Amino acid sequence: MADTQEAYAALMAFQRRTEALGQVAGRLGWDQETVMPEGAAPQRAEEAGAMEAMLHARRTDPRIGEWLASIDEAALDDVGRANLRHIRRSYRRNTRVPADLAEALARLTSRAQRIWAEARASEDVAAFLPTLGEVVKLRREEAAAIADGRDLYDALLDDFEPGMTGAEIETMFGEMRPRLVDLRARILASGRQPGALSGSFDETRQIELARDLATRFGYDWAHGRLDRAVHPFSSGSGLDVRITTRSDPRDPFNCIYSTIHETGHAAYEQHIDRAYLLTPLGRGVSMGVHESQSRIFENQLGRSRAFTGWLFDAMRAGFGDIGVADAEAFFATVNRVTPGFIRTEADEVQYNLHIMLRFDLERALIRGALEVADLEAAWNERFEADFGVKVDRPSNGVLQDVHWSVGLFGYFPTYSLGNVYAGCLHAAMRADLPDLDAALSAGDPEPATEWLAAHVQRYGGLHEPREVIARACGGRAPEVAPLLSYLEAKFGAIYGV
Amino acid sequence: MADTQEAYAALMAFQRRTEALGQVAGRLGWDQETVMPEGAAPQRAEEAGAMEAMLHARRTDPRIGEWLASIDEAALDDVGRANLRHIRRSYRRNTRVPADLAEALARLTSRAQRIWAEARASEDVAAFLPTLGEVVKLRREEAAAIADGRDLYDALLDDFEPGMTGAEIETMFGEMRPRLVDLRARILASGRQPGALSGSFDETRQIELARDLATRFGYDWAHGRLDRAVHPFSSGSGLDVRITTRSDPRDPFNCIYSTIHETGHAAYEQHIDRAYLLTPLGRGVSMGVHESQSRIFENQLGRSRAFTGWLFDAMRAGFGDIGVADAEAFFATVNRVTPGFIRTEADEVQYNLHIMLRFDLERALIRGALEVADLEAAWNERFEADFGVKVDRPSNGVLQDVHWSVGLFGYFPTYSLGNVYAGCLHAAMRADLPDLDAALSAGDPEPATEWLAAHVQRYGGLHEPREVIARACGGRAPEVAPLLSYLEAKFGAIYGV
Repeated sequence: MADTQEAYAALMAFQRRTEALGQVAGRLGWDQETVMPEGAAPQRAEEAGAMEAMLHARRTDPRIGEWLASIDEAALDDVGRANLRHIRRSYRRNTRVPADLAEALARLTSRAQRIWAEARASEDVAAFLPTLGEVVKLRREEAAAIADGRDLYDALLDDFEPGMTGAEIETMFGEMRPRLVDLRARILASGRQPGALSGSFDETRQIELARDLATRFGYDWAHGRLDRAVHPFSSGSGLDVRITTRSDPRDPFNCIYSTIHETGHAAYEQHIDRAYLLTPLGRGVSMGVHESQSRIFENQLGRSRAFTGWLFDAMRAGFGDIGVADAEAFFATVNRVTPGFIRTEADEVQYNLHIMLRFDLERALIRGALEVADLEAAWNERFEADFGVKVDRPSNGVLQDVHWSVGLFGYFPTYSLGNVYAGCLHAAMRADLPDLDAALSAGDPEPATEWLAAHVQRYGGLHEPREVIARACGGRAPEVAPLLSYLEAKFGAIYGV
Repeated sequence: MADTQEAYAALMAFQRRTEALGQVAGRLGWDQETVMPEGAAPQRAEEAGAMEAMLHARRTDPRIGEWLASIDEAALDDVGRANLRHIRRSYRRNTRVPADLAEALARLTSRAQRIWAEARASEDVAAFLPTLGEVVKLRREEAAAIADGRDLYDALLDDFEPGMTGAEIETMFGEMRPRLVDLRARILASGRQPGALSGSFDETRQIELARDLATRFGYDWAHGRLDRAVHPFSSGSGLDVRITTRSDPRDPFNCIYSTIHETGHAAYEQHIDRAYLLTPLGRGVSMGVHESQSRIFENQLGRSRAFTGWLFDAMRAGFGDIGVADAEAFFATVNRVTPGFIRTEADEVQYNLHIMLRFDLERALIRGALEVADLEAAWNERFEADFGVKVDRPSNGVLQDVHWSVGLFGYFPTYSLGNVYAGCLHAAMRADLPDLDAALSAGDPEPATEWLAAHVQRYGGLHEPREVIARACGGRAPEVAPLLSYLEAKFGAIYGV
């Protein structure tokens, strides 16, 4: 008992420093994407590499194994056991992967991202495939090192969504797919098409609106800041959680909804119980749960009829005539469903179909059932089957996403998990907050953001991902039905289908 | 021979990572002073502490001692020997100081800075003295650990200015003091007083002018950036060297001259031979040499009659009427000598008298010849003797500088060394560049900044501090005469004395 407490205290003190150093490494990434002078890139690569090597050495420090072996878990409380769960998982994973493989992967994916970007710019799939083949090969080796006899894809997926398996994702997508395909077909056959925005959208005003939106969605400015970035992201945990956005003079929705989305991610980090600061519980518990927060902010709240009613007035006040007649038409404009090739531009109805395509292809690649040489054909065939149009060029097809080039296999399904979790949370939240629409109509999402803070965000890493969602939903395990019912009701009303 | 090369390569690979991690720690400091959200401070303290502990562990890694022991210095080239000189000095110093003393000092000075700031705000010397006493005590212990029988003050001074001793500083000040006291007395007795600026100085325009000035003084924007900070500083080495400035609507000189000063520091780091990147030679060699670059930029160039002629026109173009009749009057305004209590506001004539006071007092404190209980009386007595006025309150006297509270003993004299070195370099530069004033009159300091880059800055840490200056001055060892002659000529002309 005394040994357990001593070992636990020593382990947690060591871990606290690692967490602090991990925050520094994360902030270096923020710096790179927001304020770093252009010419600093080569030096920055060495700085980031040195931080990663130092963190890897800490995460595989043999003392962690000794401390873990000295601790009697039964003598710890819930928080202690949850900390051990995270530390054990990280230690196990990091010590299983040989150092030379980890370094080879880091070097390869850094190079592969450049090669992918060039291939995409020149629409040249063949220029990317050999490198992608190497990435797949090394990721398979890594998966084999950590799989313990499990499926290779599951070993990778588990890194982003602990406890989730490819088989479960497959079942989930099997339930979603028919209803989404049907909804999409009815919408596109409806003959209705909401108008697009028109007008002039001053970029400074867009950023002002973004700041106002972040504030309305509860962003804590004393512990964060908003900057511009080419690809918006949120960054950091605890007392320093920063968000970024971008502006496009022709498309203010880009700025508006990426800001609300990143505010959702940041809200999760900002609302975690401060007692967990700089411990493994002081960060969002999984990519799927993280995405559930950003998605519910962006979609179920930000794209709701009630909130868009307020947003319509706010945009007319900021930009003058925006080419849309009234709030009802604006709601339809915000939620337009149009055919398109690009995942990141997809609406709520079609987004998950994009993910399903990627999930099946990347799972087949990692399991060895698909060769990279056959990837483009497989993509194009599947896309035409799912979306009814032929891919016109690689940048609209297999080269559109950065993920695989940087070695992210098993990451895509967490986007859909986020949507499914958001669907569950939204149903539970609406049941608890019957007057939510009145607040949203006044531009005030606070009842919803406080509900999420209290029921999801404050727990950080205390519970396993699906348990977090289930607890917030009165004990109901996550399921696809609430998301699908929400989508059918919302888009059914907009398109009269 | 093979062993030497292997050990040297291993040592330098290890050192390169340490240098990269040191840059990350430095950038964390930049972040804190420029962009960090206010509420992040407690977490930041843990992050910075974790970085320092990690760096300390690397700097005292026993492998360094083994590598050093395996290297036959005679088999290395000049660069190799210079690298060893820096690494050996750092290793020796860091391993001599007991870890618990280093940690106690870090904790104490972090606390002491807050206590000093509160004491200064409330003009309460007694509230600060017990803490200052602890700082002096621990710094003396630290000095004893590294002194090897040398004078304790010299052991601390050596950390900022390798190779320099208190006795040499004492001799230097002994030569400077009578001529500066005499010059100051003649100026104040002259009855002349140039007018001050008047007018309105838009802060956005001040920052625009600051950017223009940094560009004119050769700042490399591809490898740096300019931000606002409460206390301007420059930060970083190699490919990422950032500067900061501030603006005061009533005093545009604050923004202008702090920008030129920091650009001088940055120019040093930016012009170091790129072959030294992320090695011990890739940083400025000492505080004194660093300050020589910032001072020559700020004073000998930026406050010259030629350059202020251009600046007068630039300021009138930017701000309209500035309350000064012509370029000659403006030159005098820029170089006004007025009685005052505050070191950081002092002119070129009086500045070094402020430093002499601090040097004598801090040296006595560290040598045990002065107790902190007697410090205020000693300060006030000395100030009245040197400056002819009584200190009216502690914030204008012994509490005005942050240095002692953060444990910086032995740092003050490097400011004066910088002035002396700048005097030497200026004389050598003028001999090489007879047409420099024509360029400066056109707002173009490039001949001077290129001369400094070629003769001083590019060498980084290759030579010992005084050797750097001597090499740039045709072999002449640094001496006080050029600075004094420059000051007597310049201020003699302005004041007709």
